[in-house]
Amino acid sequence: MKIGFVGLGNMGQAMARNLIKAGHELTVYNRSQSKAEALRSQGARVAKTPREAAQGAQAVFTMLADDHALEEVSWGDDGILAGLDKGAIHISSSTISVALSERLTQAHAQAGQGYVSSPVFGRPDAAEAKQLWVLAAGAKADVERVRPLLEAIGRGLTVLGEKPSASNVAKLSGNFLIATMIEACAEVFALTRKHGIEAKTFLELYQSVFANSPIFGRYASLVASGQYEPAGFALRLGLKDVGLVLQAAGSAHVPMPIASVVRDQYVEAVARGMGEQDWSALGTLAAEKAGLGKP
Amino acid sequence: MKIGFVGLGNMGQAMARNLIKAGHELTVYNRSQSKAEALRSQGARVAKTPREAAQGAQAVFTMLADDHALEEVSWGDDGILAGLDKGAIHISSSTISVALSERLTQAHAQAGQGYVSSPVFGRPDAAEAKQLWVLAAGAKADVERVRPLLEAIGRGLTVLGEKPSASNVAKLSGNFLIATMIEACAEVFALTRKHGIEAKTFLELYQSVFANSPIFGRYASLVASGQYEPAGFALRLGLKDVGLVLQAAGSAHVPMPIASVVRDQYVEAVARGMGEQDWSALGTLAAEKAGLGKP
Amino acid sequence: MKIGFVGLGNMGQAMARNLIKAGHELTVYNRSQSKAEALRSQGARVAKTPREAAQGAQAVFTMLADDHALEEVSWGDDGILAGLDKGAIHISSSTISVALSERLTQAHAQAGQGYVSSPVFGRPDAAEAKQLWVLAAGAKADVERVRPLLEAIGRGLTVLGEKPSASNVAKLSGNFLIATMIEACAEVFALTRKHGIEAKTFLELYQSVFANSPIFGRYASLVASGQYEPAGFALRLGLKDVGLVLQAAGSAHVPMPIASVVRDQYVEAVARGMGEQDWSALGTLAAEKAGLGKP
Amino acid sequence: MKIGFVGLGNMGQAMARNLIKAGHELTVYNRSQSKAEALRSQGARVAKTPREAAQGAQAVFTMLADDHALEEVSWGDDGILAGLDKGAIHISSSTISVALSERLTQAHAQAGQGYVSSPVFGRPDAAEAKQLWVLAAGAKADVERVRPLLEAIGRGLTVLGEKPSASNVAKLSGNFLIATMIEACAEVFALTRKHGIEAKTFLELYQSVFANSPIFGRYASLVASGQYEPAGFALRLGLKDVGLVLQAAGSAHVPMPIASVVRDQYVEAVARGMGEQDWSALGTLAAEKAGLGKP
Repeated sequence: MKIGFVGLGNMGQAMARNLIKAGHELTVYNRSQSKAEALRSQGARVAKTPREAAQGAQAVFTMLADDHALEEVSWGDDGILAGLDKGAIHISSSTISVALSERLTQAHAQAGQGYVSSPVFGRPDAAEAKQLWVLAAGAKADVERVRPLLEAIGRGLTVLGEKPSASNVAKLSGNFLIATMIEACAEVFALTRKHGIEAKTFLELYQSVFANSPIFGRYASLVASGQYEPAGFALRLGLKDVGLVLQAAGSAHVPMPIASVVRDQYVEAVARGMGEQDWSALGTLAAEKAGLGKP
Repeated sequence: MKIGFVGLGNMGQAMARNLIKAGHELTVYNRSQSKAEALRSQGARVAKTPREAAQGAQAVFTMLADDHALEEVSWGDDGILAGLDKGAIHISSSTISVALSERLTQAHAQAGQGYVSSPVFGRPDAAEAKQLWVLAAGAKADVERVRPLLEAIGRGLTVLGEKPSASNVAKLSGNFLIATMIEACAEVFALTRKHGIEAKTFLELYQSVFANSPIFGRYASLVASGQYEPAGFALRLGLKDVGLVLQAAGSAHVPMPIASVVRDQYVEAVARGMGEQDWSALGTLAAEKAGLGKP
Repeated sequence: MKIGFVGLGNMGQAMARNLIKAGHELTVYNRSQSKAEALRSQGARVAKTPREAAQGAQAVFTMLADDHALEEVSWGDDGILAGLDKGAIHISSSTISVALSERLTQAHAQAGQGYVSSPVFGRPDAAEAKQLWVLAAGAKADVERVRPLLEAIGRGLTVLGEKPSASNVAKLSGNFLIATMIEACAEVFALTRKHGIEAKTFLELYQSVFANSPIFGRYASLVASGQYEPAGFALRLGLKDVGLVLQAAGSAHVPMPIASVVRDQYVEAVARGMGEQDWSALGTLAAEKAGLGKP
Repeated sequence: MKIGFVGLGNMGQAMARNLIKAGHELTVYNRSQSKAEALRSQGARVAKTPREAAQGAQAVFTMLADDHALEEVSWGDDGILAGLDKGAIHISSSTISVALSERLTQAHAQAGQGYVSSPVFGRPDAAEAKQLWVLAAGAKADVERVRPLLEAIGRGLTVLGEKPSASNVAKLSGNFLIATMIEACAEVFALTRKHGIEAKTFLELYQSVFANSPIFGRYASLVASGQYEPAGFALRLGLKDVGLVLQAAGSAHVPMPIASVVRDQYVEAVARGMGEQDWSALGTLAAEKAGLGKP
């Protein structure tokens, strides 16, 4: 298929490469053009605007940092909405707010275009290895048409129905589960250390009993070691995502007391200058509050 | 070895049977004698008091419901402390407070007896299948002497050092992690359902992405299905354990905000008459607070 | 002075009446016109649009329900921004977001108009009786010019500086204090009732000891000054007492989420070596967590 | 009357002095004797043990730091229980646990002695000035007999019924209200300072609007009565405002854990259909969660 791809950070590049490997024809766009050039050698065409990346494509992926960045490439004279053909589909993979997803749903509908909300679980190494878990929600026909693309970038796919924002809620929910597990680990390692148990001993136990889950296990390891740099996922993004969870919860009238606690931890961490550390650095706060130093 | 076993609930019975299968000679005691009789046919001798179960044994296991029950069988004229030989070892497997574990450590030391604190992770079916994960802490020589017994009842063992109460802290920490994950699931299923995602759809996603961990996965299933009866682990026991976590945290000066939130949920659930449901029934509270009914 | 007034709910009507009584010339606007008509008999002119209410006035008040309502009367062809003369002043008394207050500050500056943010404390009966407490923030000259108007509607005035949104922050902070006291009362009446104390008995005690008393004022002073030594009541005793509250709550099955939060703050403070400071030294923690130093 | 007084810290000394001034005959005891000597010149007799202070007295006061200290002077050969005459009364003014108060109630009943639980509100300067507010609970006849003593040390008295521990619950509840207000101030001064408002400016506002004001009293009345309709200020507006607080806190990076808890209560209340009741209707939620009905 003829595909546009907008947003070539670590995640986007890896996803774009897997689409090329699967035989698709890509036109890519990135704000800082050097990242786009890197894909030219692998056969991609490089566009000067998001609009150009969208023109003539059957589908255009977006993979950007936040609501603001996605708004910038979507609207305006150079934007995707202006370039995309009628009947073509915007596949939105960024972790964004439910509210923006709903606005995009409307805008594309008005323009006669399709919109599939398709955030992913996994870090850049998983993206590279085609090991992402992919979500999708949108009109059934649209989801079916882009299914081969979604299968080309991950190891599995969950379809969440016809309302695109549902997959944003699901993605945010996943990040909330991880953030909660991080905070729980932060608290529990502070408790066990304060009672004289070495972090590596409790980690062994955690790995044996709880977490043959690679996700939860990895974060427990980070907390146990106290190694929060370089960040796999920056703490300020963790704050952003938990904030989006609470927004989604507020608009639907769902009280989430754990999420509220976790948000306050992230706010404190950012206020104290830890925004660029890994989001598991809540471990530092819990340790300090218990009067402990580094593990 | 010659072993006493006090406390033959579902967990205790299964553990006792595995000790018999491993070739040990058991004298068992239980308050309601019928449960003890069930083991007679499998070769156990039945004692009339905890003291009698301890007399002449190289080690005596206890597996009881709470601090109070363990105090009752330990002290007094008919108690284990009165019956156990010098040099013999009390293996305490109940989930009890750090404070009681410390008192027992002292009392056995004064009596010239050993004390190994050895709580376990796993439900009755795991105990039956010899799939428990066993903790141990106590004097090194004592732990080594009872190691074959601990290996006879589980699939693995973590030794937490020479201070017995450390393994109680670790056990409580594990239950805290589970309770946190239950509450996080309770909140997240309320959120996703309120946004129109069916519980079983989000559960599939959860199972695919997060929880090939059987523990966390099982609790997510319970919350997703809303099936909290019969209880695998009664909610009032969950409250007890989170209460013990906060006691252990308080005495060591460790703030645990998530644990505080989770405790309040359990208090509310018990106050509303849900104490005998499964401890994953926090799912009901989160759903109701969001204005939702059963999944 | 010649004044516009937009928004004639219970609060707005009472404020408008007091301005008329003070001798000012009013042009009023309300979405449902009947409320405006009620003021005609008292000498007000009735406008058909917010713009018309603003035209020719030296100042225009707005008193509306929320951000959305204030946006509607401010922007657009019929809005205040379009009608207000250069140099005239928008006095914004609604309880709105900091973000909207900042947008209005900018918009009026671009239009060569003044903007004074002036929310009030008090309910309709206080507004009627000229007993509101009025906040004001904005350019010094603007605040001085409208001071007589602000004095005509209340019993006192606090000026919060030149940045208009500061008075919105202060108003929201006041409502937060009330909401907190409501929730604290909610928890404490549940606790005392559960322990057999009639609500009216505890209320009597509350009225005698706390309401109308300098107690809450004294602690606010300590936090404001950051002077926590010598301790009037040692923080470690505060921890002890909140711990006893939670014990009493636990035994009676009363969830007290605020108490749980407060306890965790005290635990942290003690763990960080502040146990001998005054128990109001929680002020230090909150400041540090926000990245602030001493007041 | 002939009175014993045990515990002569800052509070105890001042109370003892006022009893002497009121014409009572005191025998005092303190662990470090120098503090007792100070009262000798004012006419008190000095005892060598708590038992001696109690012997022959019609009532003995205790005013000690915590549960442990009160246990020490109450039980044992030299303790108050051993010395007090049948029919004489122990007046316990320390801030202690409900559980200890219940144990003392039993122990004194078994010894044929009376027990009145009588904690006080006020700091040492208030004690000196006879400005304490005194609580009392116990058998009616006992409370009446010691009433003149309780009136001699304070400006007012609230009787909480015949179960002594009720006054301990009430005292702890009062300290909880203060601790909550401290934490709320801690959060709100962090918020306002972060938004550029000087602490002394916000303090002025606080003193003008909240301290010494009927506001907090009014809301306590609403919660005590359970009358939430018609709404003075609608609960959905309370949710809006606390939401705006958290927005203002988020943008300035100020963690506000109390605000987060309060917001969740409002979210729940709205989700359960209470949005049009008064915002003090959080009282309903807290009561229900504790398993209580309407007051």
